[in-house]
Amino acid sequence: MQLTRSLVRASRISPDKTALIFHDRRWTWHEHASRVARLAGALRTLGVGPGDRVAILAHSSDRFIESVFAILWAGGVLVPLNARATPGDIAGMLDDCDAAVLLVGADFLPLLPTLRAGAQKLRHVIALDDGATPTGTIPYADLITSSDETPRAETGGDDLAAIFYTGGTTGPAKGVMLSHANLYANALHGIAQFGGHDERTVYLHSGPLYHLAAGSRVFTTTILGATHVVIPRFTVEGVLDAIKTHRVTMTAMVPTMLAMILSHPAFEHADLSSLSFLVYGGSPMPEALIVEAMRRLPHVRFGQGYGMTELSPACTYLEPRHHSLDPALRHRLRSVGRPAMGVDIRILDEAGHDRPTGEVGEIAVAGPIVMQGYWKRPDATREVLRDGVMHTGDLGYLDRDGFLYIVDRLKDMIVTGGEKVFCIEVEDVMRKHPAVALCAVVGRPHPIWGEAVHGVVVPRPGASVTADEIVAHCRAHLAGYKVPRSIEFRTAMPLSGANKILKTVLRAT
Amino acid sequence: MQLTRSLVRASRISPDKTALIFHDRRWTWHEHASRVARLAGALRTLGVGPGDRVAILAHSSDRFIESVFAILWAGGVLVPLNARATPGDIAGMLDDCDAAVLLVGADFLPLLPTLRAGAQKLRHVIALDDGATPTGTIPYADLITSSDETPRAETGGDDLAAIFYTGGTTGPAKGVMLSHANLYANALHGIAQFGGHDERTVYLHSGPLYHLAAGSRVFTTTILGATHVVIPRFTVEGVLDAIKTHRVTMTAMVPTMLAMILSHPAFEHADLSSLSFLVYGGSPMPEALIVEAMRRLPHVRFGQGYGMTELSPACTYLEPRHHSLDPALRHRLRSVGRPAMGVDIRILDEAGHDRPTGEVGEIAVAGPIVMQGYWKRPDATREVLRDGVMHTGDLGYLDRDGFLYIVDRLKDMIVTGGEKVFCIEVEDVMRKHPAVALCAVVGRPHPIWGEAVHGVVVPRPGASVTADEIVAHCRAHLAGYKVPRSIEFRTAMPLSGANKILKTVLRAT
Repeated sequence: MQLTRSLVRASRISPDKTALIFHDRRWTWHEHASRVARLAGALRTLGVGPGDRVAILAHSSDRFIESVFAILWAGGVLVPLNARATPGDIAGMLDDCDAAVLLVGADFLPLLPTLRAGAQKLRHVIALDDGATPTGTIPYADLITSSDETPRAETGGDDLAAIFYTGGTTGPAKGVMLSHANLYANALHGIAQFGGHDERTVYLHSGPLYHLAAGSRVFTTTILGATHVVIPRFTVEGVLDAIKTHRVTMTAMVPTMLAMILSHPAFEHADLSSLSFLVYGGSPMPEALIVEAMRRLPHVRFGQGYGMTELSPACTYLEPRHHSLDPALRHRLRSVGRPAMGVDIRILDEAGHDRPTGEVGEIAVAGPIVMQGYWKRPDATREVLRDGVMHTGDLGYLDRDGFLYIVDRLKDMIVTGGEKVFCIEVEDVMRKHPAVALCAVVGRPHPIWGEAVHGVVVPRPGASVTADEIVAHCRAHLAGYKVPRSIEFRTAMPLSGANKILKTVLRAT
Repeated sequence: MQLTRSLVRASRISPDKTALIFHDRRWTWHEHASRVARLAGALRTLGVGPGDRVAILAHSSDRFIESVFAILWAGGVLVPLNARATPGDIAGMLDDCDAAVLLVGADFLPLLPTLRAGAQKLRHVIALDDGATPTGTIPYADLITSSDETPRAETGGDDLAAIFYTGGTTGPAKGVMLSHANLYANALHGIAQFGGHDERTVYLHSGPLYHLAAGSRVFTTTILGATHVVIPRFTVEGVLDAIKTHRVTMTAMVPTMLAMILSHPAFEHADLSSLSFLVYGGSPMPEALIVEAMRRLPHVRFGQGYGMTELSPACTYLEPRHHSLDPALRHRLRSVGRPAMGVDIRILDEAGHDRPTGEVGEIAVAGPIVMQGYWKRPDATREVLRDGVMHTGDLGYLDRDGFLYIVDRLKDMIVTGGEKVFCIEVEDVMRKHPAVALCAVVGRPHPIWGEAVHGVVVPRPGASVTADEIVAHCRAHLAGYKVPRSIEFRTAMPLSGANKILKTVLRAT
């Protein structure tokens, strides 16, 4: 199993079909494969050999995807860097993985002095975008035109394919090591379990490619031989425009992105007629939001993936057929679906024993999508990965039909007056208030209760609502100790690179 | 990736669902997994350790499937033996793989003296079926009841999972070594590319489980968590009855089996209403036959897989959407579909260079489904497997849309008077004659032309036809040198264990 073979396959059987669209650039599979093989030749000339780490620091683009495959084609290991991290953190990641080469987008060129100072093994910097090429950087376009196609490396299977850094918002980032087999299994699971996708799919990369939730779909799309559509970063207008312009059939979003789209004034006039499939995941989906999405996008099939970077990233799938508003089945919308094919999910108590069906415990995952470990962090690896089982730190239960329900992240639970409050339950109620566009619940330190429930709300455009109204709404639907003690209104949420709400920021401010 | 993990998954998420049906025996996933774990415990007690070969010689049954998973659960390597081979050949296979344990069905108990004499490393024989347990054999049922569940071996990925012997009809049998990853990739490809299958699938194993075309679907069905229905061996009545009785939704057949069903008097009155998907493959599909099947089973979706044991076994898929009678698309029915996801197929000339699109050459395959090699046959392995590429010995071409057309097996071509005749072309014409149920074309030695085209026909029940009529029909549709010089009528075809027509027999008689 070699991830680059899927590119060879697509270019052999569909050479003239559009592979990749970014703004006004379009590449056929033949052109795309040729450019990848030439960029890989250039990387080899720069000294990249088997297993060498090559980093990318950029917003999404066609060149990001070319770079992904060129690094693997040369036999290297891909390291996409979180563009939202601080320059110091990014330098730390570069240094941690001993990256020899960095491909850097135009927006990040000003960080180069900091990065070079912090990552002294960095030998070459490639300026990914046209335009400025500061001293000491190599222009990407020149590399491709001046290089010959190089033979494809035979790396694959359990060979390391990528290091994705994770956890930067809650502690020092750890490099998640994923093999070719990991990423291939994840792609095949998604294709098999969602169904209905093939080379006719036009896939919009809505999220940042350096995040695995989006980045993993680069492989899915190429394995399908479908068409990649790339936008530099998520904006509501950018997504709506790309769907209309390129007749996009499929995209993926975190719930926050979906909420932003549904509550945006442009949604009402958008042409989403081509869209047939929407995948969501990356953070818990409020039931009210998915129901609203199903009602307002009745021609779209929905699928959910749940997981984490350490799981390549998906370990469960909620399939389109499980998105039902039938009262007897609707509860499944609160689940994250069933284990991926070939993946075993157990619910463990604190001693590591299996909990009975329906009872809450830590979610533990085994299967071909489990990471190889954290790069150079054997202790951190041992903490979560034992005998091939990934201990996720998430709490949940399995029902009698094998559906997994996430109760909460272990770390995203509030303990107030000795009572446990699962943030997602409160958020789900808050979101049902008609004036609420986005919301989040966090614990704030409290001298008496330990923590107090604190709600943060971004109102819908034009809506008017008071804190008392939100609290009264919550009181009507929740036990008293779960009702927020304080409500804060914001015009926008602090979002991570993956467009997840940054609870660390909400807790701190 | 561990094949047995799919069994754990199914038993965890669907413990009470029916896993396995054979005659009046039914097992839930929980029962099935428990029996497998106990049989594995018994195998370990008998000395089976990691990598040890355990052979099965039996017709299909629930116990065959239990044995498959128990051998893997114990960490062993599964060796299903071709029940149609001669006792001497079977003993040769047992000896070749140094099998320590043999599970043997009741019908094959009389062979034991021959097998023991030829396979001296055989330590234990388990009598798979209830009833007679000759001296020195261990009753299967006792093993299961008297053993405890044993922990599952952690073998997987590139570890050897199975040895399937192949080529016994054309030369000494070679053991094809397939890994867990090989068989898993094959299963996932099929699920992803055919679509529409999930745990609600009721799968009928119509063919012999010791043949990989059928045996590979044991893994597919368990990965889906669907229901296995097993019949001891293929008969038209047995298949029709099982479909009706168990509301079978999916099955797979070689073209000969499909032809036998369609031309059988019982077909007209059969209840096939539950059947929604029919997979075919294993030998070339005459266009006339698939068109007839599509017309007579209008509610069934069809899918084709092409490959060979060395390819786990499928390297291409003709998807349901490519089964069209539209004149502009119908030519695709003559193809075997497009390369599986992640599989690259090239067409090579005799020097190993790529042939242009549309031109005939040897079909060469690379991807996660390529075998690890032939057991203890490094020379035979090198002959077909070079740099991870399987040289199939089949001739074909790729069209502009990536569809593969098999022109013929290299060895199934007749050279008559210096002209090449591809048997499949003549067979396809012969089969269009309304009185023909089954047919085959072989070369017979000829003093002047080298070989002469010889046709063998099994007429439809009740039909009356002469050799002259068949020849006249062929002459109307074929170039003169392709028309059979002789026609032979038979009441039945000599069939291999996989229900393929044995051309070696037709050539020899």
